[in-house]
Amino acid sequence: QRRGIPEAIYAEGKSAPQVVALAETALETTDRALITRISDEQFEALESTFADSAPDATLERYGSTVRVLGAEFEQPSLEATVGIVTAGTVDGPVADEAQVVCTDAGATVDRVDDIGVAALNRTLDQVDRLRDADTLIVAAGREGALPTVVAGLVDTPVIAVPVSSGYGHGGDGEAALAGLLQSCTVLSVVNIDAGFVAGAQATLIARAIDAARTDDGSR
Amino acid sequence: QRRGIPEAIYAEGKSAPQVVALAETALETTDRALITRISDEQFEALESTFADSAPDATLERYGSTVRVLGAEFEQPSLEATVGIVTAGTVDGPVADEAQVVCTDAGATVDRVDDIGVAALNRTLDQVDRLRDADTLIVAAGREGALPTVVAGLVDTPVIAVPVSSGYGHGGDGEAALAGLLQSCTVLSVVNIDAGFVAGAQATLIARAIDAARTDDGSR
Amino acid sequence: QRRGIPEAIYAEGKSAPQVVALAETALETTDRALITRISDEQFEALESTFADSAPDATLERYGSTVRVLGAEFEQPSLEATVGIVTAGTVDGPVADEAQVVCTDAGATVDRVDDIGVAALNRTLDQVDRLRDADTLIVAAGREGALPTVVAGLVDTPVIAVPVSSGYGHGGDGEAALAGLLQSCTVLSVVNIDAGFVAGAQATLIARAIDAARTDDGSR
Amino acid sequence: QRRGIPEAIYAEGKSAPQVVALAETALETTDRALITRISDEQFEALESTFADSAPDATLERYGSTVRVLGAEFEQPSLEATVGIVTAGTVDGPVADEAQVVCTDAGATVDRVDDIGVAALNRTLDQVDRLRDADTLIVAAGREGALPTVVAGLVDTPVIAVPVSSGYGHGGDGEAALAGLLQSCTVLSVVNIDAGFVAGAQATLIARAIDAARTDDGSR
Amino acid sequence: QRRGIPEAIYAEGKSAPQVVALAETALETTDRALITRISDEQFEALESTFADSAPDATLERYGSTVRVLGAEFEQPSLEATVGIVTAGTVDGPVADEAQVVCTDAGATVDRVDDIGVAALNRTLDQVDRLRDADTLIVAAGREGALPTVVAGLVDTPVIAVPVSSGYGHGGDGEAALAGLLQSCTVLSVVNIDAGFVAGAQATLIARAIDAARTDDGSR
Amino acid sequence: QRRGIPEAIYAEGKSAPQVVALAETALETTDRALITRISDEQFEALESTFADSAPDATLERYGSTVRVLGAEFEQPSLEATVGIVTAGTVDGPVADEAQVVCTDAGATVDRVDDIGVAALNRTLDQVDRLRDADTLIVAAGREGALPTVVAGLVDTPVIAVPVSSGYGHGGDGEAALAGLLQSCTVLSVVNIDAGFVAGAQATLIARAIDAARTDDGSR
Amino acid sequence: QRRGIPEAIYAEGKSAPQVVALAETALETTDRALITRISDEQFEALESTFADSAPDATLERYGSTVRVLGAEFEQPSLEATVGIVTAGTVDGPVADEAQVVCTDAGATVDRVDDIGVAALNRTLDQVDRLRDADTLIVAAGREGALPTVVAGLVDTPVIAVPVSSGYGHGGDGEAALAGLLQSCTVLSVVNIDAGFVAGAQATLIARAIDAARTDDGSR
Amino acid sequence: QRRGIPEAIYAEGKSAPQVVALAETALETTDRALITRISDEQFEALESTFADSAPDATLERYGSTVRVLGAEFEQPSLEATVGIVTAGTVDGPVADEAQVVCTDAGATVDRVDDIGVAALNRTLDQVDRLRDADTLIVAAGREGALPTVVAGLVDTPVIAVPVSSGYGHGGDGEAALAGLLQSCTVLSVVNIDAGFVAGAQATLIARAIDAARTDDGSR
Ligand SMILES: Nc1ncnc2c1ncn2[C@@H]1O[C@H](COP(=O)(O)O)[C@@H](O)[C@H]1O
Ligand SMILES: Nc1ncnc2c1ncn2[C@@H]1O[C@H](COP(=O)(O)O)[C@@H](O)[C@H]1O
Ligand SMILES: Nc1ncnc2c1ncn2[C@@H]1O[C@H](COP(=O)(O)O)[C@@H](O)[C@H]1O
Ligand SMILES: Nc1ncnc2c1ncn2[C@@H]1O[C@H](COP(=O)(O)O)[C@@H](O)[C@H]1O
Ligand SMILES: [Mg+2]
Ligand SMILES: [Mg+2]
Ligand SMILES: [Mg+2]
Ligand SMILES: [Mg+2]
Ligand SMILES: [Mg+2]
Ligand SMILES: [Mg+2]
Ligand SMILES: [Mg+2]
Ligand SMILES: [Mg+2]
Repeated sequence: QRRGIPEAIYAEGKSAPQVVALAETALETTDRALITRISDEQFEALESTFADSAPDATLERYGSTVRVLGAEFEQPSLEATVGIVTAGTVDGPVADEAQVVCTDAGATVDRVDDIGVAALNRTLDQVDRLRDADTLIVAAGREGALPTVVAGLVDTPVIAVPVSSGYGHGGDGEAALAGLLQSCTVLSVVNIDAGFVAGAQATLIARAIDAARTDDGSR
Repeated sequence: QRRGIPEAIYAEGKSAPQVVALAETALETTDRALITRISDEQFEALESTFADSAPDATLERYGSTVRVLGAEFEQPSLEATVGIVTAGTVDGPVADEAQVVCTDAGATVDRVDDIGVAALNRTLDQVDRLRDADTLIVAAGREGALPTVVAGLVDTPVIAVPVSSGYGHGGDGEAALAGLLQSCTVLSVVNIDAGFVAGAQATLIARAIDAARTDDGSR
Repeated sequence: QRRGIPEAIYAEGKSAPQVVALAETALETTDRALITRISDEQFEALESTFADSAPDATLERYGSTVRVLGAEFEQPSLEATVGIVTAGTVDGPVADEAQVVCTDAGATVDRVDDIGVAALNRTLDQVDRLRDADTLIVAAGREGALPTVVAGLVDTPVIAVPVSSGYGHGGDGEAALAGLLQSCTVLSVVNIDAGFVAGAQATLIARAIDAARTDDGSR
Repeated sequence: QRRGIPEAIYAEGKSAPQVVALAETALETTDRALITRISDEQFEALESTFADSAPDATLERYGSTVRVLGAEFEQPSLEATVGIVTAGTVDGPVADEAQVVCTDAGATVDRVDDIGVAALNRTLDQVDRLRDADTLIVAAGREGALPTVVAGLVDTPVIAVPVSSGYGHGGDGEAALAGLLQSCTVLSVVNIDAGFVAGAQATLIARAIDAARTDDGSR
Repeated sequence: QRRGIPEAIYAEGKSAPQVVALAETALETTDRALITRISDEQFEALESTFADSAPDATLERYGSTVRVLGAEFEQPSLEATVGIVTAGTVDGPVADEAQVVCTDAGATVDRVDDIGVAALNRTLDQVDRLRDADTLIVAAGREGALPTVVAGLVDTPVIAVPVSSGYGHGGDGEAALAGLLQSCTVLSVVNIDAGFVAGAQATLIARAIDAARTDDGSR
Repeated sequence: QRRGIPEAIYAEGKSAPQVVALAETALETTDRALITRISDEQFEALESTFADSAPDATLERYGSTVRVLGAEFEQPSLEATVGIVTAGTVDGPVADEAQVVCTDAGATVDRVDDIGVAALNRTLDQVDRLRDADTLIVAAGREGALPTVVAGLVDTPVIAVPVSSGYGHGGDGEAALAGLLQSCTVLSVVNIDAGFVAGAQATLIARAIDAARTDDGSR
Repeated sequence: QRRGIPEAIYAEGKSAPQVVALAETALETTDRALITRISDEQFEALESTFADSAPDATLERYGSTVRVLGAEFEQPSLEATVGIVTAGTVDGPVADEAQVVCTDAGATVDRVDDIGVAALNRTLDQVDRLRDADTLIVAAGREGALPTVVAGLVDTPVIAVPVSSGYGHGGDGEAALAGLLQSCTVLSVVNIDAGFVAGAQATLIARAIDAARTDDGSR
Repeated sequence: QRRGIPEAIYAEGKSAPQVVALAETALETTDRALITRISDEQFEALESTFADSAPDATLERYGSTVRVLGAEFEQPSLEATVGIVTAGTVDGPVADEAQVVCTDAGATVDRVDDIGVAALNRTLDQVDRLRDADTLIVAAGREGALPTVVAGLVDTPVIAVPVSSGYGHGGDGEAALAGLLQSCTVLSVVNIDAGFVAGAQATLIARAIDAARTDDGSR
């Protein structure tokens, strides 16, 4: 656990038993396990093993990300909202990673999907909702235009996540990363597909706001 | 003259007398001269020389681009409009290059400046005007988001020009170029700062439309 | 549907049942389905399923691209011709993508294959045919010389598509892309292998010309 | 003014009179001017002109960044502290840019200079001070290790700014940028030398905390 | 054998019988075999074959690296210690390669694992041990900060090995390599994942020190 | 003198007296001096100095390349022709370098300028002349298409020289280099702007052919 | 057939029946077939099919390259020798490609393997043999030093082939390619792994020399 | 002072008075000053100032690197030799940097210049001298082949320094760096032009050997 953020288990490239074993250890030491990039097969192994070995544990699934909650886990609660926004369906798994970290820390998450700039009216329809969050994570691939457009519409801190979609020149997220670093509005960036880091950074901001709110407004 | 597009004189890195000499030759052979990336000093040399040597020539200035018209030049006229759009002031000289080519070919040019996506309302305010053009050139630097947003709002062909602004990673137009190649809408691209090529390509489209219009609608 | 261009189903990396399901949805909502980068296995699944579920649908195959037409689909027709040109056989699937979009929109397509510059006489033999089209798409891999040579021979707008062939330095289409951006003639470019985008851009040009022709020559 | 952050005048590459003119306009419209990357000559021109034209304006200098305050300017005040940290002297001008934005918005700034990791004890000596800030900006060039080390020592959000120092492979800030995107702790990043953007992002976080503190702890 | 360093068999991409055959040849000609990047399957083939064909050979396993010692092998011994340090578990196989070379040459190896800078106290806890070695190899992936921090804490030569971990921009060890080349302290570098080369270079240093020690202190 | 090719003096970045001094030494030791990338000022210094110090030396100028011949220099003669071809005027200085090396070795040089593929008829008009040479050097910048087209038209060895023209993506000769390495015909390549190396390689081929011709046809 | 060089069949990524079918067509049209990068399985399919369908055809195998000779094939013969040199075993398949082209054209081939510069005495031992060839192809991977060293030792034209070995920075042949383009001696280069092109270019040189020799020494 | 290595003053880009001032401070605090990349003008300013202000200081010049010794400076002495080798004259200033660090620490320096591999006999002539040093620094630009060749001839640790010579692809030292990282022999690398770091690393090795020698051979 670094910076009060739990370690996550990166399931891709691991066998189902390996994922299960790592999840069991995490559950023992921190009362819950976070698993990202999980496959259906790995998820089923998790479900069937834990039905036996930890029958009172709860499994929460956010797309390709999973959280296993032990019976003793005490869910914290933050008085702060993180908006998590995607441009298209391909951005979903990256946003899922962000979501599970924020949720685990107790932030309210408002997830807004599929509002990429190619159909700008869908973006504009969500402006009020975007303005209601305390901080925003915006994930976008290919040319990565959505975080810039969103940041131009709100006054809160925006964390942009370039996503490794696209083929040809600038594919695999490099165009989106470069574009976000060049953004003519104000935002900060994490690495390509680094949804977990974006979620963790948003959590640190949400905790600071929560602390300010609940410390009765003074320092 | 390739493809019915005049050669232009690229003034950057040439001395004022060199620019003047090249302009004189162009004037003799094609009845007009196009000069791009001209400095004030070069422009003044042009003015004072031509006042003497070609007193009935006309100088038209489009920012850093200049067209010198000989007395015999017969300005063609196309029944077609090219919209030329910039995201910010830094994109001006590149748009100027495009503009002089289209103008020289006789297209109507509608220039719309400084409507970059960081202030999205300025973009949206111009939608009707953008839709009125037969084809659009959109120039944008840094993250190059504007051409994608514009192309999502119109039904006409859009030619995007990445501009070499920005510093750090993806600077010098590379982020904009990569982003435009990755664009999730429909557009085609020319090289960084290649305003002249964009203008020439738009001219070819405008000519095709003009021919269709004036050839009494049939082929 | 963006810019009046139908969405396509990108079959690569999807299972045959996934492709079939997406095609069925497309057929229901837009009366036809476009599928790119299809395998033989996926195509057979499509054929056998639709024989049952949609017996009056028609399957058109353009190499690795397929169009499924529902009984209700009203084929539009444009008074405009798009020439689609390839340098070699490896460019075929990319040209197929372009072709299906143009065909779907009702343009006449003139396909000219395998006229790469290593055997220049084959290129030159086709000049008259190339000049007859209203706009050209030219696909070429490796060093990507063909679009430049073709554009030097015609007066119509050329859209160049770099293709991801070649190995070693500049392989995977990067040499072709860079060369086309540097082209010393007039053309515009889409991303590596982006045949679909090239077809869509040519369609927008063809529509503009068709409108000019059929709007009885005036605006 | 985007996102409540004033526009700054980027002095590099502008003449002294141009900088002065832009500063005068900014002063008129927003009651103060922010100028980054100013030279001594430009600063002196500013001083001597404003001594005449705006005798009651105040000039504040933060290294290569300057703020000119008009008599009417109402300095806001935020109940929040931004720590601004540099690894070495070469990072100073970038940190100055960040500092002037945060100061202009009314945040308390705690500047901690020259604590790069090559002399780790200097870093460790400042841990308590670093923990006291509400959010941190850390600027570092060459290998850019400092932001990672600092972020491992505090619980607050860290914004890292890679700085364009270094020569050879990975020079000009590219090694630092890549390293920060790969950081094994939690932080977000802005582009190379983008001190202004880092300051603006930290300001948005500081404002959110201030609002939470001063809105009597509830929403 | 180059520079007194044995050739190693790089097992990745070879079949189990190929690895066994190469190991048998090495055993015959140099009385031992070094195999790097071995899989479990390859290792088992090695064990079962050698049980028959060379029953008095010994197999030493260092993670994914293996040394087979023939009965006649005379283990040299150096009066010198090489410290081998990793930032995290992903760096293990690369460090194993280094270790087997140093061990084979007779150096004392002190292996210190998992002291990456994200948890700086773990790094600092090992300072005395790090200072005791005659030379250090430090392997680190992602942002590669550990070798710089370690080199700032000791007075002995440090050889840094960037490791191909990390995804996105700067992944596959490129960020670590660039950062180490930019390091603001004193160290030298080998290629990404080149644990074998690092071990060989450390061996050459250890041999020079051993020679100086055992040649009764004079030359 | 490497490989029987004289060293050349690379004048760019040297002072006029430095160039003169190096030329004097070359004249003394090898009876002639080759100087590449010379400026007018450097050339005049050469002329005026040698008028005094070596009045019977001859200066030959090939654009920006110069050869100074001492009175004793015995010009060799090869029974072989090197064709040197450029796409445009910007390729001239690079071709000059090649030309002086071939001339110095005694090859007949046939220089064919300005036949780039944008005006293909100019290329085709020269086919017979191109076929007459024993080997060809073809220099081209921007997209570098000319060497591929030429090599497709002749049966002799072609050495391609990419030239550092062009701006934006692939500028400075990188697009031409990558395209030439990807060429779908048969040719070999030297580095960007390496006219000297191309001339030297063509000289080695010309010498081999000359030797075969003059050694009465047998070995 | 371009430039008198036969087309080759690139077997990698094709099925055994595909390779057989293509070989049959080549045999019919040009009396022989050249196949590169063949697998054992593909080779066996070739053998067993041709035993039936073309029993009087001959199969020649050069490592991973194969030539099938029809009964009618008339083997040409050139009075010229091509030396083909490799640095290590990994360079073999690339050299095999070169060898089959030269052999097919009738040149004498002198193959010299495994003389890379890490064991310089092996290189120097072969100097006389290297000097005897009329032209040399030198293939080398990793740092690609061998072609430079060889070219410094002979007076004949050297064609260098960078080979895609090596891992980490500069791996996959990019370091070798860049180093060969920077070579401080005289040589020309083909793309990474382009053994076939190198063989074809050497063939063109060998043909020119042969023609000069056999045309009784005059032109 | 890091790792017992003095800080050096990098003169390039500083004014003569700045260099003098920094040298005075260094002289006061560490009894000597090291200045790299000094110009003639800066050196003269140093001489004339110190003639007045520090008349008993001594100035040592090593090409473009200078060491100023205060009267109190106690020159240490190491019982160890560092060989410093260059491929050509362009590598001189980089080697000078290395030399001054080693000299300052008291190592014996054996400088061997201009033995690049294009004239291999010059390299081989120096083998005995190269073998006599305790450790070697080898600086080479363009393709950077020399360090690999040298390392193949000696048994001591080699530190390679790529030098920023060369133009075109792989220029500015990148080809040399990549080639050295790929070297098929054993060596370690520092960044392009980082002669100072190479000298410091060699110093650390020399100190370890000296300590072993003078600590009467035991530990
Ligand atoms: N070959 C293609 N090139 C570019 N875009 C495509 C291609 N095929 C499908 N698309 C578009 O890619 C987007 C995502 O497609 P899919 O992955 O099928 O959901 C849709 O907007 C499609 O219209
Ligand atoms: N140092 C800086 N870094 C990033 N943006 C800046 C900086 N200085 C000014 N800007 C912004 O750059 C844009 C263009 O500035 P200018 O070139 O002065 O017109 C404005 O939005 C400024 O706020
Ligand atoms: N992990 C490794 N890293 C670097 N070189 C290696 C490694 N393993 C083996 N080698 C060397 O690579 C060369 C070729 O090995 P092989 O592919 O087994 O023929 C030999 O010189 C080995 O010593
Ligand atoms: N234009 C050129 N291209 C490539 N090499 C050159 C050129 N001009 C000179 N050289 C070579 O560069 C080396 C160094 O030249 P210099 O910098 O004059 O000492 C010598 O081997 C010259 O033969
Ligand atoms: Mg997007
Ligand atoms: Mg923009
Ligand atoms: Mg092609
Ligand atoms: Mg740093
Ligand atoms: Mg690390
Ligand atoms: Mg060209
Ligand atoms: Mg090699
Ligand atoms: Mg060298």
